[in-house]
Formats: sequence, structure tokens, C-alpha cells
Amino acid sequence: MTRLTLNLANRLIEAALAEGQRLQLAPLCVAVLDAGGHLLALQRDERASLLRPQIAIGKAAGVLGMGFGGRELVRRAAKMPAFFNALSDLAGGNMVPVPGGVLIRDPAGELLGAVGISGDTSDNDELCAISGVRAIELIPDTGDPV
Amino acid sequence: MTRLTLNLANRLIEAALAEGQRLQLAPLCVAVLDAGGHLLALQRDERASLLRPQIAIGKAAGVLGMGFGGRELVRRAAKMPAFFNALSDLAGGNMVPVPGGVLIRDPAGELLGAVGISGDTSDNDELCAISGVRAIELIPDTGDPV
Amino acid sequence: MTRLTLNLANRLIEAALAEGQRLQLAPLCVAVLDAGGHLLALQRDERASLLRPQIAIGKAAGVLGMGFGGRELVRRAAKMPAFFNALSDLAGGNMVPVPGGVLIRDPAGELLGAVGISGDTSDNDELCAISGVRAIELIPDTGDPV
Amino acid sequence: MTRLTLNLANRLIEAALAEGQRLQLAPLCVAVLDAGGHLLALQRDERASLLRPQIAIGKAAGVLGMGFGGRELVRRAAKMPAFFNALSDLAGGNMVPVPGGVLIRDPAGELLGAVGISGDTSDNDELCAISGVRAIELIPDTGDPV
Repeated sequence: MTRLTLNLANRLIEAALAEGQRLQLAPLCVAVLDAGGHLLALQRDERASLLRPQIAIGKAAGVLGMGFGGRELVRRAAKMPAFFNALSDLAGGNMVPVPGGVLIRDPAGELLGAVGISGDTSDNDELCAISGVRAIELIPDTGDPV
Repeated sequence: MTRLTLNLANRLIEAALAEGQRLQLAPLCVAVLDAGGHLLALQRDERASLLRPQIAIGKAAGVLGMGFGGRELVRRAAKMPAFFNALSDLAGGNMVPVPGGVLIRDPAGELLGAVGISGDTSDNDELCAISGVRAIELIPDTGDPV
Repeated sequence: MTRLTLNLANRLIEAALAEGQRLQLAPLCVAVLDAGGHLLALQRDERASLLRPQIAIGKAAGVLGMGFGGRELVRRAAKMPAFFNALSDLAGGNMVPVPGGVLIRDPAGELLGAVGISGDTSDNDELCAISGVRAIELIPDTGDPV
Repeated sequence: MTRLTLNLANRLIEAALAEGQRLQLAPLCVAVLDAGGHLLALQRDERASLLRPQIAIGKAAGVLGMGFGGRELVRRAAKMPAFFNALSDLAGGNMVPVPGGVLIRDPAGELLGAVGISGDTSDNDELCAISGVRAIELIPDTGDPV
């Protein structure tokens, strides 16, 4: 089993931020959590707004908390709004059910951690998350079928 | 780069409250936060209701947290209610997405802080915020195109 | 009965900050709460550190919460540390039992509100609070006998 | 005035972690906050224990909250334990008064942010923080006289 190391997390973040620059996105914050939901690395563009670290961490914590990617969280939140309001309270707010939270899996499907990105639209945030995970040759699980 | 000093914050608040009196609005509370989201100055008309300080601070914290003025927060909250519920929890409630939260920029567009006003209708609160920022020769960013 | 108005709170704060400058103290934050414990006015020197607004509010909220000035809170906290730890939790942290929290009374002894100051030593903070209250011809109650 | 950018924060962290390896310290977590107390960058060695990110952030937030380095926080906490218990509650726990929280100043003394490190002894954590700040040619303020 591959383990998500700090070195891998740093490389993931660098690739994600580079993709954001290539796409000329708004300033981003990228957070990588390990399989236990604990922060391994975070980088915030100094021009990104103040709440971006919490949102990025909350996206990653949300997908780890429920065990599926942000796209599936969005679908479930639409069907069960009261449940997701309760989840948000339960998590002390650390659960942000939107695209841009992506599970990180190894090629065998084993869960290694998650990345959360905030700063541009949720769809663009997710593109950068996918790029970051692929740059370290792991599998991004956005919650949508492959 | 101009820095938002206590002296500037006091002058902003006085001008905002004077505009409220000129327009014969309900009693107001005005809060000014620096670029890091920390309170520089606050004044509450003694006749304003009890939650006005938290609402005024929450409006200013909301626009700083997300990086755009209250009008844009309103539009996004209408499109993404679940996300904004999550943001409110994430911010411990200190995020109030309505007009009356206005970013303060210098003429070069640099972000210096934010003002939040509560007491009358959100539209009227915002008019006073705009007056206050202009009185110190800085640029109010309401989230609407200029 | 005198009521603590915004105008009086502003004058109290200006006098307290002027005393801090006269004594060449560190940058201060001054908060004035009404008799209901709600913020009327706050000013933070832009050079004061980030937690000063919460500390200043917490000093004023503490003296109002228990009904005696900061000096008496200090004495009771020394005798009953477990009780004061519990009080701090109970108040969500908004209870800071040190000098610099001063009740504001009218000449008949009626409670009108409280001022809290943070930035220099607690003793110096309190000197400025006393100056501020006296400047509006009200009576500072520090928790020590007159 | 220099501003603390993400690039500077990353270089600070790399230098601090390299110093930790050179000294053969336990696995570390390093957090860099901007002057407003918001996270710019964080890296946790994947072998460091789970609470290290919060401790590192709490050390940096503590020195920014009070405006002096961790060594001075230690001295004050020893003299005023009840006050520091109250501060911890006031800050929601985000205030850890031990060495290893170091203010980052520019050569003119202007406050740019703070670094917090956790993982080894507080003294060793602080050595790495000092190395990191010096590596980007800024001035570490540990709370001790130079």
C-alpha cells in the first residue's frame, strides 16, 4: 500500500496550484489530509480570501467523513438537506459538501486521504484537485463515475 | 499602500452614522474590520437592538472571508444554499451574506478591510457603508459592478 | 437615571486612549458594554495585537457577568480556581477575570455598563479605564473599596 | 514593507524542516500564519502525531494574539495562570503559550506574521523556527531579548 507522505502531499499541491495558474484561476488554497483526516500540508496563495483555508480543509474533511467524493455529497445534500445540515453541525462546520473535495485512492482503490481546494468556482477548484492527484500517479475520486 | 488605521475607521463610522441620520434610518450599528478580519472600531446606537453588533461584524467578516462584497454573496447564496449553510457553520455563524457588508479598497484595488452595517433594511445599511468608505477617500466594493 | 449612550461611550473611549498616550502605554483596545452586556463601542489601536478586542470585551463581560469589578474577580479566582475555570467555560470564554474590567455606575450607585481595556499591564489598563469613566462624570467600580 | 507571501512561507518551512533533520529531531509540523493570523502554509511530517497541526497553529496564533513571542508568553502564564486559562478559552483553544511560537518581523521591526512548530521539545521546536525565519532573511522574535 502506498502511504500519503508529506513529500507526496507537497507535490500534489504544487501541481494543483500550477494548474490553477495555467487556467488563470482566482487565487487558491489547497489542503491535503491523510486517511485519518489530519492535515498533512496546506498552501494558500497570499491573495486568497481569509476563509479559504477552512473551506479547503472542510471540503477534504467532508469527503473523508462520508467516504465519497464532493459530487456525490452534492447529490445527497440536494436529496437530504436536513441530514446535511445536521452533518454540518455534527462536524462543527468542518464538512463542506461541494465539488473541489476529492478522495485520493491508490490504483487498487485503497483510500489514502483527500484534497480540498477553494478559491475559484467549485468546478474549477475540482479540476485543479484532479490534476494534483494525477501528478503523483494516484487516483482522484470526485464522487462521479469514472 | 494605505493601511486602515483606527483614525480612518472612526471617521468612516462617523460618516456612515451621519448618513443614517440624514436618511432618517432606524438606529444603526457599524463595524470596521482590518484586512485580517479583526475589529478596529465599532459603534452601536444605544437604541439599536441587541444582535446588531454581531450582525454588523458578521457582514464585514463574510465579505472578507469570501473576498467579494455582500451583493455577490447574496447571488451565490441564492444559487448554492447548502454551501452557504455550510459556510455559516464553518465560520461559527460569523458570516452574514446580505447587502451591508462592503469591502474597503484603496484606489489601486488593494484590499484594506471591510465595513458591516446593521439596523435598517440591508439596502439602506449598504448606502451608509458606501458613504462611510467614500468619506475617507477609499473605494467601496459592494459586490456589484461599478 | 443616566443611560449609557453611544455618545458617552465614545467620549469614555477617547479619554481612556488619551490617558494611555499620556502614560506612554502599549497600544490599547477599549470596549464599552451597556448594562445588558452588549457592545456599545470599541476602538482598537491598529498596532494592538489580534486578540485584544476579545480580551477587552471579555474583561467588561466578566465584571458585568458577576456584578463586581476586576479586582474582586481576581481575589475570588485566586480562592476558587475551579469555579472560575467553570465560569470561563460557561461564558464560552467571554469572562476574563483580571484588572482592566471596570463597572460603570452613576453617582447613586446604579449600574450602567462596563468598560474593558487590554494592551498594557492589567494595572495600567485599569488606570485608563478609570480615567475614561471619570471623564464622563460617572463612577468607576474596580472591585476595590473606594 | 515586505509582505509574507506563500513563496516566503514555503521557503521558511523547508528551512525549518531541514534544520529539524540536521538536528535529528522527532518528526515536526510547521505552520506559518500571516499578520492577520490566517494560515499561509503548513507541513506535517507524516510520522508526526495527530494533534501537531493544531499545536503548531496554536503556538503561532498565540504569539500573534498577544503580540509577543512564546518565551514571554511562558513567563506571563507562570505569573498569571488564571488569566492564561481564560485566554485559552477565549481563543477557543487556539493559543498555546510555549516556546516554538515565534513572531516574524522585517528588519524595521514591522510584524509580518508568525511561525509555530510542534513535534520535539519546545526548545528544539523553537530552534527550527528561528532557522526558518532567518533563512528568508527576516527577524525571529522569540519573546526573549536579542
